[in-house]
Amino acid sequence: MTSTTLVARREQALGAGAPLFYNEPLHIVRGEGVHLFDADGRRYVDMYNNVPCVGHAHPHVVEAMVRQQGTLNVHSRYLHEGIVAFAERLTRLHPAGIQSVIFTCSGTEANEVALRMARMATGRRGIICTNATYHGNSEAVGKLTRLGAEQPAGGDVRAIPFPEKLRPIVPGASDAELCEAYLDRLRDAIQHLERSGAGLAGLIVCSILANEGLPDIPDGFMARAAEMVRASGGLVIADEVQAGYCRTGRWWGYEVTRFTPDIVVTGKPMGNGLPLAATAASKALVDTFRARTRYFNTFASSPLQAAVGMAVLDVIEREGLREKVAAVGAALKAALTQRKGRCALIGDVRGHGLFIGIEIVTGDGSPDRERTVEIVNRIKDKGFLTSNAGAFGNVVKIRPPLTFSQRHAEEFLDAFDATLDDIDG
Amino acid sequence: MTSTTLVARREQALGAGAPLFYNEPLHIVRGEGVHLFDADGRRYVDMYNNVPCVGHAHPHVVEAMVRQQGTLNVHSRYLHEGIVAFAERLTRLHPAGIQSVIFTCSGTEANEVALRMARMATGRRGIICTNATYHGNSEAVGKLTRLGAEQPAGGDVRAIPFPEKLRPIVPGASDAELCEAYLDRLRDAIQHLERSGAGLAGLIVCSILANEGLPDIPDGFMARAAEMVRASGGLVIADEVQAGYCRTGRWWGYEVTRFTPDIVVTGKPMGNGLPLAATAASKALVDTFRARTRYFNTFASSPLQAAVGMAVLDVIEREGLREKVAAVGAALKAALTQRKGRCALIGDVRGHGLFIGIEIVTGDGSPDRERTVEIVNRIKDKGFLTSNAGAFGNVVKIRPPLTFSQRHAEEFLDAFDATLDDIDG
Repeated sequence: MTSTTLVARREQALGAGAPLFYNEPLHIVRGEGVHLFDADGRRYVDMYNNVPCVGHAHPHVVEAMVRQQGTLNVHSRYLHEGIVAFAERLTRLHPAGIQSVIFTCSGTEANEVALRMARMATGRRGIICTNATYHGNSEAVGKLTRLGAEQPAGGDVRAIPFPEKLRPIVPGASDAELCEAYLDRLRDAIQHLERSGAGLAGLIVCSILANEGLPDIPDGFMARAAEMVRASGGLVIADEVQAGYCRTGRWWGYEVTRFTPDIVVTGKPMGNGLPLAATAASKALVDTFRARTRYFNTFASSPLQAAVGMAVLDVIEREGLREKVAAVGAALKAALTQRKGRCALIGDVRGHGLFIGIEIVTGDGSPDRERTVEIVNRIKDKGFLTSNAGAFGNVVKIRPPLTFSQRHAEEFLDAFDATLDDIDG
Repeated sequence: MTSTTLVARREQALGAGAPLFYNEPLHIVRGEGVHLFDADGRRYVDMYNNVPCVGHAHPHVVEAMVRQQGTLNVHSRYLHEGIVAFAERLTRLHPAGIQSVIFTCSGTEANEVALRMARMATGRRGIICTNATYHGNSEAVGKLTRLGAEQPAGGDVRAIPFPEKLRPIVPGASDAELCEAYLDRLRDAIQHLERSGAGLAGLIVCSILANEGLPDIPDGFMARAAEMVRASGGLVIADEVQAGYCRTGRWWGYEVTRFTPDIVVTGKPMGNGLPLAATAASKALVDTFRARTRYFNTFASSPLQAAVGMAVLDVIEREGLREKVAAVGAALKAALTQRKGRCALIGDVRGHGLFIGIEIVTGDGSPDRERTVEIVNRIKDKGFLTSNAGAFGNVVKIRPPLTFSQRHAEEFLDAFDATLDDIDG
C-alpha cells in the first residue's frame, strides 16, 4: 500500500477535503508513549497530540478498557457504581461550586450542553466569545467559530477581541490601561446584547486562549471579565477541552489565568482516545438543565467511559504528570525564549506547561504563516511532529503527551536549531 | 453499596433527573451475550439494548478494541489504512449512490452533519420530520423533537403526521386513500416551507418510524414521499440509527419500508458500545460539505472506531445475524400476534425483525400508557428487560441484541403470558 494509493482511496471513502497534516502526509501505523511510527518504521516524537495525554497505548488505560468492555458497557439508565464514582472524582478536582457532571461523547456535545445550560438558567440567549476561537463543530457551537470566519459574529453571538499584549488594541498602552480597554470591549458587547433583546446568557472562553495562539493576557483581565459577566447576570463557561487535565502544569487552565468559572467543559484528554467529554457545574445548574431537557446521550455516562476516565486520572496521579509537565514545560519554554533573542524569525514564545507557542515573524515583526508551515514540515522531516496555529496561523504549536520528558525536549531543541539554521542558511 | 445509597450519590454527582429505567432501578454490574446481571447476581434477558448489537462483552469486539488501543489510537489528520477500509466496507452495504462517509461520535453529531449537508447542498433551510420523532439532543437536531414537545414545529422545521394505519388521519379510508392523505400533508408542509422563504432542504425520517411506535405504514408511502421531496429539490435523509445494522432482518430499514435515501445516518449498534456514528452519502454531497465546513471531529474517524466497527461487521457476517434476526423475529411476532386475538389488552403487534412493538390498550382500544408501564415493570421482575415507547408511551418495546435466540423468545413468551395472567387475574 503506497501512500499515494491510500490518499486516493481515502479521498473516495471519506470525501475530498478530509483534513490531512503536512505537505507529505504521515502514514501512521503505531504509537507508544510519546512516539508515533509510520508505515516505513520511522519513529517520530509526537509533540502535537493532547488526546493520548498519558502517552500512546498506555497499558493501564488499555487494561481498563478491555476489562470494562469485557464486563459491561451499556447506556446510563441503570444504576452503575463506576460512572458515579468517576463523576465524584472529577468534581473533586474543581472548587466546591462545581458539583455535578453531564457526560457526553465530544467537546462539541459538552459545549452544546454548556450553552443550553447557560441559556436556560438565565432565560437569555446572548453568548460572548472571542474573535479567534473554536469551540466545536455543531450548528449552535459552530456559530462561535470566528477563526477564519468570513462573517462577523451576529444574532445571539458577539465576538470580542481576544486580550493580548503582543498586538494589543491600544498600542503602547500600559498593562493596566490595556486591561481596561479590553474590558470596555466586553462591556460594549454585553450592552449590545442587552439592547438587541437577546440579553446576556454568558461568556464562553478557552481558559488559556489556545486557538487564539496562547497570548499573554493583560494581568487581571480574566477575573475582572468574569466578574463583569456575573454582575450582568451571565454565566462564565470555561472551555477546558485543551487547557485542562494538567496541560499547563496545573490541573485547569482557569488556575493559570486566574478566574472562577460557573460551568467547566472538558474533553480531549479525558479518555486517552476514547470519546469522552463532560460539562460540570453546580448541582442547581445541572438539575435545572436535566429537568428542562430530560437530556440523554446513548453512548455517554457509560461504564466504559467511566473505567477509562478513571484509568487516565490514575496514571496522571501515579506518574506525577502534573508536576512533570510544569518542570519540563518551564525548561523548554525558557530554552526557546533564549533562542528568541538570537533568531529574528522568532517573534515571541508563549504558553504554559507543555502547551507552548513559538510565533514566527517576518523582518518587520508581522506574522509569517508561510514560514511557519515550512518550519513545521521541516521539523517533521527531522522526526518531530508539531503543527501551526493561532489567529494568523504563524504559531508553531507544541502540545505533546504529558509524558514528554526533558530528554525529548533536548532532542527537539537540537532539531529546532538545525531547522532554523537550514532556513537562515 | 445499597441501591438507595447509590441513587443518592448518583443524584448528587450526575444531577437530579438523570434518567433511570424501572420503578425499582436496576443496579447492573455485568453483561454477557443477551444477559445482564445485577449486583445481587440476578440474571436478566436483555430485550432492550440495540447498542451491544452482537451481544454484551462479545470477545471478538473486545479483542479488536484492546489490540487497536494497544497499537494506535489517534485523530484522523494522518493517513491510516484501517479507517479507509472501514468506510469502504460500510458504503458497500448501501446502493451505489452512497459512496463516502463522515464519521462522528454519536447519532446526534451524525444527524447534525446530515442536516447541514442537506442545507448546504440545496441552499435552503427547511426540514420536514414527523410529529412524534427524535433524532438527537443538540440544539439544531433537538428542534426536530416532537415527542412530548409542547410547542408545534415552526421556523425552519415542519412536522407532518407520521403515516400509520391504526389511528389514521382519515378513519375508514382505504390503504390507497390513506397514502394520498398523508402525501397531501407532506405536500402542504413543502408548500408551507416554500412560502415561508425557508424552502425545502430535505425530509429526515427514521426508516421504520421507531420512536413513532413502529406503525404499519400505508403501502408505497415512503417511496412516494421520497419522490415528492426530490421533485421539490429536497434531499431524503434516512435515520438508520435504530433501524439499521440488521435490526429488521435486513441490513437497512429503508429496504423494509422501500425507499432510496440520499443521505444515510447510522449510529447506535456500530461500535457495540464504543461511541461511533456516521453520515454516508454520494461523494458529491460529502465533498461539498467538507469543502464548505473543513469538518473535523477529534475522536471520530479514529483507528479505534475503525477496528471496533470492523469487528462488529465481522461478527454480524460470521454469525449470520441478519438471517437469524429475520427468523427469530418473525416467529416471535407471529406468536405475539396470536396472543392479540386472545387478550384484550393487546391492541396491536407491529414491527420488523427483532424490533417489535406490542401496543397496550384499554377496553375501548385507547392507548393505555399506565398499564404498559406496569407490564414493563412486571416483566422486568420476571427477568426480562423491555421498555415502553411510541407516540402515546403505550408500546412495549422489544429490541434485544441481535444474538437473541428462539429459546430466549420462548422464555419471554412464557413470562409475558404469566404477566398478562397476573394482570387479568
